[in-house]
Amino acid sequence: MKKIINEPATVVVDALRGFEVAHADLVRVSYDPVFVVRADAPVRGKVALVSGGGSGHEPLHIGFVGPGMLDAAVPGEVFTSPTPDQIVAAVRAVGGGAGVLLIVKNYTGDVLNFELAAEMALAEGIEVRTLVVADDVVAQRGVAGTLVVEKILGAAAAGGADLETCLEIGRHVASHAFSIGVALEAGTVPHVGSPGFVLGPAEVEYGVGIHGEPGHERQELRPARALVEGMASEVAVQLPVGRGDRVLVLTNGMGGTPPVELYLAHGIAERSLVEHWGVVVERRLVGSFVTSLEMRGLSITVVVLDGARIFLPEERSRLARLVEWWDAPVRTAALRWGM
Amino acid sequence: MKKIINEPATVVVDALRGFEVAHADLVRVSYDPVFVVRADAPVRGKVALVSGGGSGHEPLHIGFVGPGMLDAAVPGEVFTSPTPDQIVAAVRAVGGGAGVLLIVKNYTGDVLNFELAAEMALAEGIEVRTLVVADDVVAQRGVAGTLVVEKILGAAAAGGADLETCLEIGRHVASHAFSIGVALEAGTVPHVGSPGFVLGPAEVEYGVGIHGEPGHERQELRPARALVEGMASEVAVQLPVGRGDRVLVLTNGMGGTPPVELYLAHGIAERSLVEHWGVVVERRLVGSFVTSLEMRGLSITVVVLDGARIFLPEERSRLARLVEWWDAPVRTAALRWGM
Repeated sequence: MKKIINEPATVVVDALRGFEVAHADLVRVSYDPVFVVRADAPVRGKVALVSGGGSGHEPLHIGFVGPGMLDAAVPGEVFTSPTPDQIVAAVRAVGGGAGVLLIVKNYTGDVLNFELAAEMALAEGIEVRTLVVADDVVAQRGVAGTLVVEKILGAAAAGGADLETCLEIGRHVASHAFSIGVALEAGTVPHVGSPGFVLGPAEVEYGVGIHGEPGHERQELRPARALVEGMASEVAVQLPVGRGDRVLVLTNGMGGTPPVELYLAHGIAERSLVEHWGVVVERRLVGSFVTSLEMRGLSITVVVLDGARIFLPEERSRLARLVEWWDAPVRTAALRWGM
Repeated sequence: MKKIINEPATVVVDALRGFEVAHADLVRVSYDPVFVVRADAPVRGKVALVSGGGSGHEPLHIGFVGPGMLDAAVPGEVFTSPTPDQIVAAVRAVGGGAGVLLIVKNYTGDVLNFELAAEMALAEGIEVRTLVVADDVVAQRGVAGTLVVEKILGAAAAGGADLETCLEIGRHVASHAFSIGVALEAGTVPHVGSPGFVLGPAEVEYGVGIHGEPGHERQELRPARALVEGMASEVAVQLPVGRGDRVLVLTNGMGGTPPVELYLAHGIAERSLVEHWGVVVERRLVGSFVTSLEMRGLSITVVVLDGARIFLPEERSRLARLVEWWDAPVRTAALRWGM
């Protein structure tokens, strides 16, 4: 195992020390227990958004802490859920009197520990709700779509949405986000020392998650056009939309994938979604945002922003702001625009 | 060779198609000859900044095209210089009447082809100057420091600096930028099919460039603390600064390096520079900006922003704006803040 680390046991804290010094204008880091909050937390009168999960997926979630997105991120050890104590400490640090929404990727450990933390916080009188994201179409895990949920909710909360409204918006976005991933090479968990799976020289792991677990099936590596069109179709069949409906497409690198491959894949994905499925790609994002250590691979996520066939009129007026919330100013380590 | 591509011959154009669709609000792409310009080019009355070089270093340079940074980027094939014809076509497309500055990384082919292009443009009556960046302390190649030169010049040109002033500022920044790189694993050029070098399970290539060429020497992989402190020192001995002088530190991933390793390294680099060299880290940037395909590794760049011992009083007043130019609004695919 070759990595630029000191020792496996201190990877998370050592990386957080660098993150803290790099982004001292944006965040404060607590080391005991470990969590990251925006520098001006708590923000009085705003619903606070807290996410977290195992480390090794950076910039998710620490890189999304800041104005317009998360109030706190709670990183566990690599690919290991944070403890309830950690989570509740972060909740206490960011609660601004308008309640706290926990955004949780759908993994057993995360769901369990965030729910325990929610109970502990409720017992202390803090109003807490939990939102579970399960955008992966293969195994209903929470993957790259989580970023979109966090961005949209960040804007809604900054705009004054109350806790129940945030939960409702979050459930809507999460249930209209669909992702699929593929890997050419797995990452290596530092304290394990060997990769999560080993592929042959022409094999890919198809339908892969972000924890080095095996995917849906092992396939032969095809040219990008065939591979990515297949991925786009696999996502598109899930979409409750018709021609002309508006979507956001996220092409996400897994940590070891260079931009040249991401952009190449994004072009194929977007063209395929437009030509074969008739959707309008209203917004897009390309980059390595939800990673799996140094895994080589990528995921395609499609989020439905507006679809005439599925939204009732009253729902449409409420959700017409999804694009506006996506575009709203954000200032975090990994996503920044408008400020 | 496993990559998410169609075929080696079309990698650059296929990736540009994805880049164009992802950033249609920012850029226009020409395919014959190949170059990328900001969507609103030419900007009348502003010095135009043009850079370029072999592809495979993305987001450099295409990801730096936009308001506040480059007017055009000219990508060659992977690790291959763009042709003079390509470059001069980009120069024609962005020239806004105030002259054009070519920013060139110090590689023989790039320098030659950009100089030929400059002569061709001059013969057409376009005022052109050339700035060569050679920040790599091992072999005077142009590497990650080029990003800092492009950002600062982008702001200076946007602020109305004329061609000679831009050249002077650029020369100053370039001559005060120092970088060193290390690789754990080389990338593979698509049309070559095998990595630039192969390392043993505990070896690193030290003093490496961004084209898969071997580095200064092969070393045993040490813990990050020893490795990165050594890199920081190697850069710091070049600095013409003393205690209390102000610098910018860029910790740059080479394409296949996850954020957890970059932040971990950045923390060590910054602490080491402050504790052992007494400098003040005024600004910093951490991410994969100047890559070498999917190479695993990173570079540390230090740029002197202000140093009492080296700047004459009249020079200091002229250069007091380096931090201001760095902070100035920028809107590109890869660097964006303030707009």
